[in-house]
Amino acid sequence: MIMAQTISLAKKHKVAVGAHPGFPDLMGFGRREMQLTPEEAKNYVIYQIGAIQGFAKAVGTSLQHVKPHGALYNMAAEDERLAKAIAEAAKALDSDLIVFAQPKSALAKASVKAQLRVAHEFFADRAYDPDGSLVSRRQATALIKEPKKVVERAVKAAMEGTVVALNGELINIGQFHTICVHGDTSFALKLAQALGKGLVKAGIKVEQVGKFL
Amino acid sequence: MIMAQTISLAKKHKVAVGAHPGFPDLMGFGRREMQLTPEEAKNYVIYQIGAIQGFAKAVGTSLQHVKPHGALYNMAAEDERLAKAIAEAAKALDSDLIVFAQPKSALAKASVKAQLRVAHEFFADRAYDPDGSLVSRRQATALIKEPKKVVERAVKAAMEGTVVALNGELINIGQFHTICVHGDTSFALKLAQALGKGLVKAGIKVEQVGKFL
Amino acid sequence: MIMAQTISLAKKHKVAVGAHPGFPDLMGFGRREMQLTPEEAKNYVIYQIGAIQGFAKAVGTSLQHVKPHGALYNMAAEDERLAKAIAEAAKALDSDLIVFAQPKSALAKASVKAQLRVAHEFFADRAYDPDGSLVSRRQATALIKEPKKVVERAVKAAMEGTVVALNGELINIGQFHTICVHGDTSFALKLAQALGKGLVKAGIKVEQVGKFL
Amino acid sequence: MIMAQTISLAKKHKVAVGAHPGFPDLMGFGRREMQLTPEEAKNYVIYQIGAIQGFAKAVGTSLQHVKPHGALYNMAAEDERLAKAIAEAAKALDSDLIVFAQPKSALAKASVKAQLRVAHEFFADRAYDPDGSLVSRRQATALIKEPKKVVERAVKAAMEGTVVALNGELINIGQFHTICVHGDTSFALKLAQALGKGLVKAGIKVEQVGKFL
Repeated sequence: MIMAQTISLAKKHKVAVGAHPGFPDLMGFGRREMQLTPEEAKNYVIYQIGAIQGFAKAVGTSLQHVKPHGALYNMAAEDERLAKAIAEAAKALDSDLIVFAQPKSALAKASVKAQLRVAHEFFADRAYDPDGSLVSRRQATALIKEPKKVVERAVKAAMEGTVVALNGELINIGQFHTICVHGDTSFALKLAQALGKGLVKAGIKVEQVGKFL
Repeated sequence: MIMAQTISLAKKHKVAVGAHPGFPDLMGFGRREMQLTPEEAKNYVIYQIGAIQGFAKAVGTSLQHVKPHGALYNMAAEDERLAKAIAEAAKALDSDLIVFAQPKSALAKASVKAQLRVAHEFFADRAYDPDGSLVSRRQATALIKEPKKVVERAVKAAMEGTVVALNGELINIGQFHTICVHGDTSFALKLAQALGKGLVKAGIKVEQVGKFL
Repeated sequence: MIMAQTISLAKKHKVAVGAHPGFPDLMGFGRREMQLTPEEAKNYVIYQIGAIQGFAKAVGTSLQHVKPHGALYNMAAEDERLAKAIAEAAKALDSDLIVFAQPKSALAKASVKAQLRVAHEFFADRAYDPDGSLVSRRQATALIKEPKKVVERAVKAAMEGTVVALNGELINIGQFHTICVHGDTSFALKLAQALGKGLVKAGIKVEQVGKFL
Repeated sequence: MIMAQTISLAKKHKVAVGAHPGFPDLMGFGRREMQLTPEEAKNYVIYQIGAIQGFAKAVGTSLQHVKPHGALYNMAAEDERLAKAIAEAAKALDSDLIVFAQPKSALAKASVKAQLRVAHEFFADRAYDPDGSLVSRRQATALIKEPKKVVERAVKAAMEGTVVALNGELINIGQFHTICVHGDTSFALKLAQALGKGLVKAGIKVEQVGKFL
């Protein structure tokens, strides 16, 4: 299926659409660090958001959010100049865009500074290190695959603002607005469905971030 | 120089900006025919116009026109379904876009049908066949490189609506709104400057098509 | 898994390795016709065979065969100049390469002329038209997915040299040396296993083409 | 002109041909650092050397050397695991290949360890830092463009093994076997011609490295 049809389907099912811009590294799926100048990064992000905005407009909808992909997301969590470039690109294209970012990250701060709304992300299917960062995907323990466990973590995080880190320590992750489930696994759909049901069952209301942020 | 800077410069010098979408064939520079479905073509055109619209928006300007590139332009002159796909893509993204097309081409007709403005093109630096089509670039006689000759042709075409075809025949090319000079030659700048001066000297007013169409 | 490891695995399991060169059309997976000059096609085929030869050499093995991919395969079945370009590229890189081609195709003829061995292909999972060509994949009836049916067709073709075309007609397909199973389906592995067992059960010896051609 | 023709021309004019493998970063021309695993780098280098070997073989010649391109060259000067991956890739494809590397670099050492010949490079058109490394191309002073100056540096380096660094200090660069002139400038040809003449005039014999290393 091609892009216009995909976004058309999302619109039909009332699923919010966002841009997921990354590094121009097809073979590495954008998951390898590249050393770009902020100016280059800004151009690539404009290019990718602009293209998706075109598809959204063509099917009569618009983008809700922007979330950098892969290594660009990870680098923008630390690198202030890169984070600023991304936030400025998003702001220039649509000042209503919500930026998805980890709490306290450079990207979250740069987005606030650019007067964009920020949605804090919780990663239900990823292990956390005690300092609140994610365990690297190069480690076998990085991914949590069991739906029951993922739902438990999400509910606990939503109710108490805490998660159990890989070393067993209970850490504070604060308030969040959106839960990330990686789409490139065979069990992604099951996880998303389990999360939807589990959160509602725990009395938590699930809504598009664009409606309450 | 990268895209945002290029469009920024164009804006500063009051040069109108357009999209030039083509086939996804980097190695062949979009000059080789590809057999796409109209749906695929529509997606590629949306993608490319959307991306350039993003850059234009980021520097505070907007697009004036769309002109398909290379083999896509040539195929859309003949293929009605392809022409319709391109016109619909342009219309969906910005109904103020002007489509550059050869007079009487399938693309010109599809654009009118999509209620888009059409700018007829005259190719000052290309030889014409007696039927009004362009001599294939695979032939050595296809390109006219001498500025004086190019200007003479342009003035004659603008004043009389005619051009001398490769076989010596005088043919009617009708009214046109824009003159194409290919940008990928070493003498492109000289040609454009000679044309600008030559047309004004002949008493012809030169304006952006967006201002009079 | 990356290329060197893939070919290493093939070597370990005594699976013959071949090159599968196609058009430079990533988004279309090489399945869309492109109008290249024979010289361009020859360069692309050299490039792709050369790269795979590099990987084969690096893991201590070599290529058994070359089979053009997708639209390049289909076009080379009809287009003599394209077929010649491909055969010459293969011959230049390794005169021991076997070319996989449909019987009577332009590619089969050009390969014989270039003094390369040719393996005739039978498509066990594809419907045939009465003239011996394959039903276009754009038609729903083009693919045969049921392992039992695929095995029956292969055994009948191997024993009798015939296949039942889509219109019910029994057609002669002659002798063949290899059976193609498309690798990009979820049931490819099952088909290949069923074919392996089914052919042996019918008393047909299954061997690498490089060993008997 | 396409690859087979280019190498054919080189052969005709008795110019040695080498592979110049780099990062898969077309938009950045391979000049931006990418964080690859050594295994990924090895695969990319095999792929690129293999493809060029194919072209060389097709026109009846073979490769003399391998020199990593851009950021890959710079990173392999420092990173031992990356240098080892590149040397192993070259060794696996042709143990007669000469690796072009800076003296004392990780790549020079890894190539010696892999039992490959190494040609030490002198950069006649690049400024040196006092520690013997090249001044970054992001600095305006990095490139030396004046043919006379470039020739003087080359002759001095060849005769005395020294070069004047950017800060005026005379530094020892040791013996070298080849002089690099960057091919992507408008004055590259003039530099190469001036170097050829200047070295001979100074009594230095100029030969292909493959003939004396």
